[in-house]
Amino acid sequence: MQGDGLGIVEDGAVAARAGRIAWVGPRADLAGPAAETTDCAGAWILPGLIDCHTHLVFGGDRAEEFERRLAGEDYAAILKAGGGILSTMRATRAADEDALLAAALPRTRALLAEGVTTLEVKSGYGLALDAELRQLRAARRLGAELPLSVVTTLLAAHAVPPEFAGRRADYARHVAEIILPAAAAAGLVDAVDVFHDPLAFDDADTALVLDAAARLGLPAKLHGDQHGDAGSAALGARHRVLSVDHLERASPPGLRAMADAGTVAVLLPGCTYFLRETSRPDIAAMRAAGLRMAVATDFNPGSSPALSLLLMLNMACTLFRLTVAEALRGVTVQAAAALGLADRGRIAPGLRCDLALFRIARPAELCYWLGHNPCTGRVVEGR
Amino acid sequence: MQGDGLGIVEDGAVAARAGRIAWVGPRADLAGPAAETTDCAGAWILPGLIDCHTHLVFGGDRAEEFERRLAGEDYAAILKAGGGILSTMRATRAADEDALLAAALPRTRALLAEGVTTLEVKSGYGLALDAELRQLRAARRLGAELPLSVVTTLLAAHAVPPEFAGRRADYARHVAEIILPAAAAAGLVDAVDVFHDPLAFDDADTALVLDAAARLGLPAKLHGDQHGDAGSAALGARHRVLSVDHLERASPPGLRAMADAGTVAVLLPGCTYFLRETSRPDIAAMRAAGLRMAVATDFNPGSSPALSLLLMLNMACTLFRLTVAEALRGVTVQAAAALGLADRGRIAPGLRCDLALFRIARPAELCYWLGHNPCTGRVVEGR
Ligand SMILES: [Zn+2]
Ligand SMILES: [Zn+2]
Repeated sequence: MQGDGLGIVEDGAVAARAGRIAWVGPRADLAGPAAETTDCAGAWILPGLIDCHTHLVFGGDRAEEFERRLAGEDYAAILKAGGGILSTMRATRAADEDALLAAALPRTRALLAEGVTTLEVKSGYGLALDAELRQLRAARRLGAELPLSVVTTLLAAHAVPPEFAGRRADYARHVAEIILPAAAAAGLVDAVDVFHDPLAFDDADTALVLDAAARLGLPAKLHGDQHGDAGSAALGARHRVLSVDHLERASPPGLRAMADAGTVAVLLPGCTYFLRETSRPDIAAMRAAGLRMAVATDFNPGSSPALSLLLMLNMACTLFRLTVAEALRGVTVQAAAALGLADRGRIAPGLRCDLALFRIARPAELCYWLGHNPCTGRVVEGR
Repeated sequence: MQGDGLGIVEDGAVAARAGRIAWVGPRADLAGPAAETTDCAGAWILPGLIDCHTHLVFGGDRAEEFERRLAGEDYAAILKAGGGILSTMRATRAADEDALLAAALPRTRALLAEGVTTLEVKSGYGLALDAELRQLRAARRLGAELPLSVVTTLLAAHAVPPEFAGRRADYARHVAEIILPAAAAAGLVDAVDVFHDPLAFDDADTALVLDAAARLGLPAKLHGDQHGDAGSAALGARHRVLSVDHLERASPPGLRAMADAGTVAVLLPGCTYFLRETSRPDIAAMRAAGLRMAVATDFNPGSSPALSLLLMLNMACTLFRLTVAEALRGVTVQAAAALGLADRGRIAPGLRCDLALFRIARPAELCYWLGHNPCTGRVVEGR
């Protein structure tokens, strides 16, 4: 890495063998013949982008709710009439696996077109065994049908379903003892996530699910410290989760604990923007703690209907004042760390040859333009 | 128009003859044979979108300045080192007409891909006769090379160039007496614009340029009430300009004067977002006054590097709380009014057959998704 933290090689070349990067450096130093050569025609070559936090598989959308709120309807009344997350739960439960996949495909293609090569997808709108499994299977099929890696996260502990109304702790136990083991046995779970929040699951509920994940040998992550300082950062650090995501209201001691535990902070500026949140993650404290910061879309129908990781780069810079290098590392090497993937996120020998090509004059352009996609190509496992 | 202000026709059809709309209504009522039929395959048909305020033709960009500010460099120091609008002026002056066109083409294609069929382009980075003419000629060529209408606006009164440092009023007179008449004689000016602002041109300067425009029979518009309540709204109303744009700090009496004069308010949420402005245009006062509201990108390298009119729909709703109908009318019928064009912006017999097709379930989706482009086709003058 160079001084600016991006490790730029001018007039560079990348050599790949069997899907892995074999060599990277200045083109003039490239040795030996290659079976196949691709001229990237002056494009910038970046590691394939990684969207490490999405809720991309769901039924329905909330465009009508968005319209009604703008027309002045009271949100409490909309919720009472069945709106909010439970409307997405109903639409997700009503959709079969093919329908979930069909809805997710164009969303995924939009991210692919920007250079995304690895995508995390959470469940959490089924909130019951069958529907959660259906979401995860649809996510796996996305990775089979399109040229990208999909990482699945079980977020059954996203909200309390109506069947468990008033019995939150019982639902957490149901997730830990029934849903998670079944989903893991089906090979559908790469990681486990819990919405740790005053509006969702408390410390004890969260510990139940995280302990169950640990017993299964599965890594974990948290949605935390979003609506208040719930101590999610410190809780996540204690459980050595891969990442705590959101953190708009996390306190410096919690952030330091995360840094000490090697936990990544995942920043979700689309959610801040869409909800018109005034609270910002404490970037200065994160920097002071040496905390690793990733950036993701949090794509979901309720709080971040954002199908552009490039737009999130701009929002991370504009709203959170990340530097260009921090933002770009946030969707590459740090996003890989947030997913526990050591084999991607950088261009280095031995890593997966996942690349994104951009027609730009300097990397800062990826953060600067809004609603502009200069991606001219992607390479996934050398192809 | 129906109750929601959008005039939706379900299962509708549009008939065109010689580039104009001949008929619109329910498909079942469509009479007679057509020489050619296009099945829009269930897509929603909207009037072609109109971006009524851009600074799309310029040299260079300000990505490096963006990066340096995020890295903590003082803006005053960047300005002193030649940054800001004057850096764009230098890059624009240094570019020949072909280079300006080449840089503008991909930007325009990005807007086209979202369904834009009419685009306003301002000069204002040349700030000298030759360079202003070059910008306007490049804008005209955009309209010749790509399938869309380009409307040109002379904004020579955008900033005071170094040649007139300390002689702002002299430069305004130079614009009124030299640049504007020459550009108009060359057939390059559809409208005239002035940056009426404490940081730019005052009432007297502005009146000089607007009076010169009136003598030439050219319509006018203002950038106004952006950094303070400068009385731009009332000034624009007195001069019966087509639109006053920005208005973040306009007062209700000025907005009422605009409504009485038939002047359109052009809202630029991308600029509010990118500059992290806390002041918002007074939408409630605009509604109370019955003021027409348009929405545009204000695409420019300094304060709104936003190449997506769909993103502006979301920002108008999210940041300014426009309703879906207000936002959609803002990029169609009201945007046409802001340009003084009575022949487009709606789907009605006699108007230009400029259409945009979208694969969506309801129009609210155009405002709801972020960074998603569901446009599947465009029709310009019936083709
Ligand atoms: Zn989330
Ligand atoms: Zn402007």
